[in-house]
Parts: sequence; structure tokens; C-alpha cells
Amino acid sequence: MRLSLFSDYALRVMMFAALKDAPFNLSEVAEAYDISRNHLVKVVNHLAKLGYLETRRGRGGGITLAMPAEQIRVGLLLRRTEGSPPIVECFDTARNACRINGHCRLKGLLAGAMESFYASLDAHTLRDLVCGPPGARMNSVLLS
Amino acid sequence: MRLSLFSDYALRVMMFAALKDAPFNLSEVAEAYDISRNHLVKVVNHLAKLGYLETRRGRGGGITLAMPAEQIRVGLLLRRTEGSPPIVECFDTARNACRINGHCRLKGLLAGAMESFYASLDAHTLRDLVCGPPGARMNSVLLS
Repeated sequence: MRLSLFSDYALRVMMFAALKDAPFNLSEVAEAYDISRNHLVKVVNHLAKLGYLETRRGRGGGITLAMPAEQIRVGLLLRRTEGSPPIVECFDTARNACRINGHCRLKGLLAGAMESFYASLDAHTLRDLVCGPPGARMNSVLLS
Repeated sequence: MRLSLFSDYALRVMMFAALKDAPFNLSEVAEAYDISRNHLVKVVNHLAKLGYLETRRGRGGGITLAMPAEQIRVGLLLRRTEGSPPIVECFDTARNACRINGHCRLKGLLAGAMESFYASLDAHTLRDLVCGPPGARMNSVLLS
């Protein structure tokens, strides 16, 4: 089971944003994680479009969380960054050629299992990810 | 979130085996699903190695389930066919370069969410996948 690199980076950007107490720019987060700035452009734009980040241009501008970290459910965030990639072929309506499609019970079972995956993450918020001693250590690695 | 094509095919082979009441060969299952026989060779060998399938050579030989379908938990089967692919970079011990590794709580949360995914599937057996009217329709598509 794999999540997209897009989701992986989205989670990292959101944790960075939750740790920062001032607006930041793309280069800062790219440098902090040592990942390509180009990869992050799309991620940040998408997170802004979803209403998780606010981006302001100009002097005093930059990227900030658009809502308190304790209001951001990790499962919902991940559902949104993942979108609906087909977990197996039968979830891919455009390219599904499985001959038992429509008769097979597996699709419903897998959809339920994915729901359990996300529900488990919904028990946690972005705040949980960055609080306490682990958050302090992340802070010192990323922001020092 | 994506499962491997290997797991997708493994599930299809196992459902085929559960529907058949006699030994079958690779060409039959490849033809039934209209997928490459070459892809299935590895899948069947792996399922045999895991103890789910029995393969016998020679006259009267062929592939059969190695245990009753009602004893095969779907979650456990999938755990075994998936192995341990890294859900995100920090699960990839060989190539993990994430700078907050060791401090970040996300890894534990994702591991828990994967466990919820598999546990949800463990509530069902291979028998559940092929019984009743859906099973009868799969049977008619695949074996007629």
C-alpha cells in the first residue's frame, strides 16, 4: 500500500506550517526538508486551494496556516490530497477491464478498508503531530 | 492509496481457485481474466510458497486451494502479498532521507491506519468473496 509523493510532501508542508509562528516562503520549507522547490509549488497551491494554507504576496506576505492546527483532521487532509486514485483496477472507471466487475464483492470490502484507514487518522489533528517533545525536536531540526 | 498489481492479481487468482472445484492451470485463469499468463506465473508461485495454493505437476495435476476458503482471511492474504512496501518515504529504511525522521509522529499514525485497513479486511474470508448470487455470477463469467 502506497500513498502518493504529493500527499507525503503535503503532510510535511502542513507540519512545517504548524511549527512556524510567522509567514514563510517556499524556499524555506524546501530547504528545511532538502526537497525540490519545484515539487512544492504544486503542493502548496493545492493546499491553498483546499483552504488549508493562506498565501499572501508582497511585503510581509508568505505562507501561513489558514485555520488552527487543532481543527485539521489528518484523515480528511489525506483524503483530499490523495483524491481518488484507484486502489486496484476496478476503482479506475476509465481503464477497468476486469471481467468480474459488477459481480465481485472485493471492491466494496476495499472501499470499507480505505474508510477504516482514513477514520483511524481522523482521530488525530495536525496539532497532535507537532506538539510535545517530538514537535520541539522537529522544530529544532526544521527551523534552526 | 494504491495496492500493487501483484496483490490485485493474487486476489483474482484466489477467487478463481475458490470458485473452481477441480485443479486448473495457469492458462485457464489467464484466459478467464484476460490477463498475461507471464504475470500470473510469479503470483501463483508466491501464493503456493505462502501456503495458499497447491500446485501439482503431471497428469491429474494443476493448481488448487491449499486450505478451505473459509479459513483464508482477506486482510492477512493481502498483508502477505503486499509485503512491506513503504507507504511513504520514512517507511523505506534504505532510502529514507526525511530530515524529521525519528521525531515525527506521522509514521506511527500511518502504521496504525494501515493496521485498521487490514483489520477491516480480516473480518472477511475468501469464502465470503465467492458465495451467494455475486459468486454465482462470477462463476458464470469466469468458468463458463
